[in-house]
Amino acid sequence: MRHFSDRALLTDLYELNMLQACFAERMNETAVLEFFVRHLPPQRNFLMAAGLEQLVVYLLSLHFDEDDLVWLHEYGKFSDAFIDSLQDFGFTGDVDAMPEATIFFADEPVVRITAPLREAQFIESRVINILHYQTLVASKAARMVLAAQGTPLIDFGLRRAHGAEAALWSARASYIAGFAATATTIAATTFDIPVAGTMAHSFVQAHETETAAFNAFAHAFPANTTLLIDTYDTEMAAHQVVHLARHLREQEGIQIKAVRLNSGDLSLLSHRVRAILDEGGCREIDIVASGNLDEYAVQDLVSTSAPITGFGVGTRMNTSSDAPYLDCAYKLVEYAGRARRKRSYGKAFWPGRKQVFRQFDAQGKMQCDTLTLQHDAISDQALLQPVLRGGRMIAPPPSLLEIRSNARSQLATLPSSLRQLAPAVPAYPITIAPEVRALASAVDASQHAAAEAECMRWGINMK
Amino acid sequence: MRHFSDRALLTDLYELNMLQACFAERMNETAVLEFFVRHLPPQRNFLMAAGLEQLVVYLLSLHFDEDDLVWLHEYGKFSDAFIDSLQDFGFTGDVDAMPEATIFFADEPVVRITAPLREAQFIESRVINILHYQTLVASKAARMVLAAQGTPLIDFGLRRAHGAEAALWSARASYIAGFAATATTIAATTFDIPVAGTMAHSFVQAHETETAAFNAFAHAFPANTTLLIDTYDTEMAAHQVVHLARHLREQEGIQIKAVRLNSGDLSLLSHRVRAILDEGGCREIDIVASGNLDEYAVQDLVSTSAPITGFGVGTRMNTSSDAPYLDCAYKLVEYAGRARRKRSYGKAFWPGRKQVFRQFDAQGKMQCDTLTLQHDAISDQALLQPVLRGGRMIAPPPSLLEIRSNARSQLATLPSSLRQLAPAVPAYPITIAPEVRALASAVDASQHAAAEAECMRWGINMK
Repeated sequence: MRHFSDRALLTDLYELNMLQACFAERMNETAVLEFFVRHLPPQRNFLMAAGLEQLVVYLLSLHFDEDDLVWLHEYGKFSDAFIDSLQDFGFTGDVDAMPEATIFFADEPVVRITAPLREAQFIESRVINILHYQTLVASKAARMVLAAQGTPLIDFGLRRAHGAEAALWSARASYIAGFAATATTIAATTFDIPVAGTMAHSFVQAHETETAAFNAFAHAFPANTTLLIDTYDTEMAAHQVVHLARHLREQEGIQIKAVRLNSGDLSLLSHRVRAILDEGGCREIDIVASGNLDEYAVQDLVSTSAPITGFGVGTRMNTSSDAPYLDCAYKLVEYAGRARRKRSYGKAFWPGRKQVFRQFDAQGKMQCDTLTLQHDAISDQALLQPVLRGGRMIAPPPSLLEIRSNARSQLATLPSSLRQLAPAVPAYPITIAPEVRALASAVDASQHAAAEAECMRWGINMK
Repeated sequence: MRHFSDRALLTDLYELNMLQACFAERMNETAVLEFFVRHLPPQRNFLMAAGLEQLVVYLLSLHFDEDDLVWLHEYGKFSDAFIDSLQDFGFTGDVDAMPEATIFFADEPVVRITAPLREAQFIESRVINILHYQTLVASKAARMVLAAQGTPLIDFGLRRAHGAEAALWSARASYIAGFAATATTIAATTFDIPVAGTMAHSFVQAHETETAAFNAFAHAFPANTTLLIDTYDTEMAAHQVVHLARHLREQEGIQIKAVRLNSGDLSLLSHRVRAILDEGGCREIDIVASGNLDEYAVQDLVSTSAPITGFGVGTRMNTSSDAPYLDCAYKLVEYAGRARRKRSYGKAFWPGRKQVFRQFDAQGKMQCDTLTLQHDAISDQALLQPVLRGGRMIAPPPSLLEIRSNARSQLATLPSSLRQLAPAVPAYPITIAPEVRALASAVDASQHAAAEAECMRWGINMK
């Protein structure tokens, strides 16, 4: 049996309900749905798109297998004819999307899907599940990368990631955003992301003394020894490292690479440990730091010139702890050739097939975005690009290194007001093109007229 | 190839480093490690344990397969002898744990693992990854269950869960805590959790009018019709439902079951829609509500008697949005027969194999917990129970319904101060037994003496 995460039944039940209702109505004209974020978290200046590769994998492999069909029969609420129709269900539509690592803002379509209604609608739950999480993490990780100002960041987040897929995907999304490596080993085998790792407290504790643990570890990994020195007393451990390092260097030619701090006042301790190491003739031993770090802590350490040459960042990055979800949606903007939108309070969105154009200033910095209709090509800087046509990829997907390189370019185009951690004032300007506003009015008027006619027909007297 | 989430390489690289270092040292005495939470999030009064079943599945199936071994060779930093030794690596130890759904507090061991050091230590990353997330969700969901005061809650969270495993496991954890059902269909096939679902905005939008959409849906699911009425104008849609319901009932014998509100002021709208339905002779049509609900919103709606008979809750439950992670750890408390602990600033923990005893008052309400050593059996209400012995289950695991029933019993024992959403003052009392405090002092003194001797040996002059 396939793993549950690869099965078509990884969906909300209502997607199946919709599918059967559309099947019963023989309703399957072309639908256009767009994935977008309604509002940025208040403290954020931009978001970074990620997860498109996994979305494509999902769409290309989507099908109901025998196990799925058996369950649908057993569930008892779907018709046999409908379940039979699912045997050749798959994704045959088009995908246009911002390339992964593109910076984007509220209301901008990140992915646009054009397909027969049943396909385009059915995929909603997993489309959001896939795009939301990696975008969430890449956006958070990008802030950390900006805050670190070139100091390498390593993903330490497996343990408190929300499950296995979150652990793997956050390793990918943070690597895209500019992290140097991950501790999550499976990410090396899956995505070829560099892995890194040091040692655990339990290893130190299991030895009679820290020196004994450090010595054993240095012998096991003579070419790559990073010693965790905060198990009992960080400064006392640093003194032991100085003496052990001298011994190992002189007697065995082993060079200790770094020490790791994982608790306490990292600024204070890094300065003290640096002094102990330097006075002991160990200027070549680096200091790396970890322990509940977020972008603000990283920025504080970097801006106060703490002598730290690498940061391990985990939980707060991959749970996006200050904003653990994005207010995102995947919504119908056109059906059977007519633009659509909903107007639910606080959740209205712009109708029609849309495109985003970005303008840059003379220095190559982002100046403003325009949200307009697809055919209203106001410049050649269209952010959404073709990805799938008729259910097939139109070009090989970019490599992870290419995506990572795109992230670097994207971050380089951020104006300084958006690079800072504090909210930019004023926020980045997004112009809604007159064509979009006009279409929204027309769609609303037409929907309202249809609703009034319906009410008239039923004799409903509206206030 | 196995799915990545089932592979031994779903671990932090440092676990493999430790494994090789222990292998090189032939170090593999019995180790005892405990999983616990250091601090409750400030606004929380209790936590609820979950995830033990998935932990047991992981331990029972843990092994390195050919793909893993090939990668370890290719990685180039591990010795051949070490990699060969992994061919028969597996979990052969003991597990003691609080049964799933047990309520617990800071510093209390939730799971205790006793095994040869290499096994007990290697599993750390995934042990935390498994236990942390479901515990996080069950704890959050339990607050929603208390706030709902008997009104059914349905998990709507797949889309913004952090990946597939989070979606599936949060369906399980929220069901344990007392949710009535989930929309995540794969949870029905995997865990036999009841599934529920309504309709999407895109379905409404794709039709010319709401009435047309409602009518089509009612015909597709005549026995189970819940209509989403907030796409354009909630009250206008409610009027249309009244007329459609009458028509369907009289002409076709179809009874609309409920309408769903998903935006706007749910209290106000539920009263207005109730009035419209009642005045239209549709008292039997229920109102269910969803849309960014958390326990506070649910409590407000329930306490103001909003006429809502079911809540759909998603994102804020399964991202545990107010506290998206727990400050949890899995730490060595004993090795080779000697108690251990670390003393890292802010991260010290209690040494030794521990047990938790709970005391109840005459009304059966929880009165206080005592954290003590395993052999110090102060009552027969020991919370940690044997689960695995020598790598094998000692009894069949409880069914999900039994676990859910345990959650109900557990919540019934909460004193009223802990049942409220606001922080209890005073907090629930946890007594640290004198035996534990004495052991901590002895462990610290012994470690300190060893460190001093080590420093003497190296000629380090400590302040």
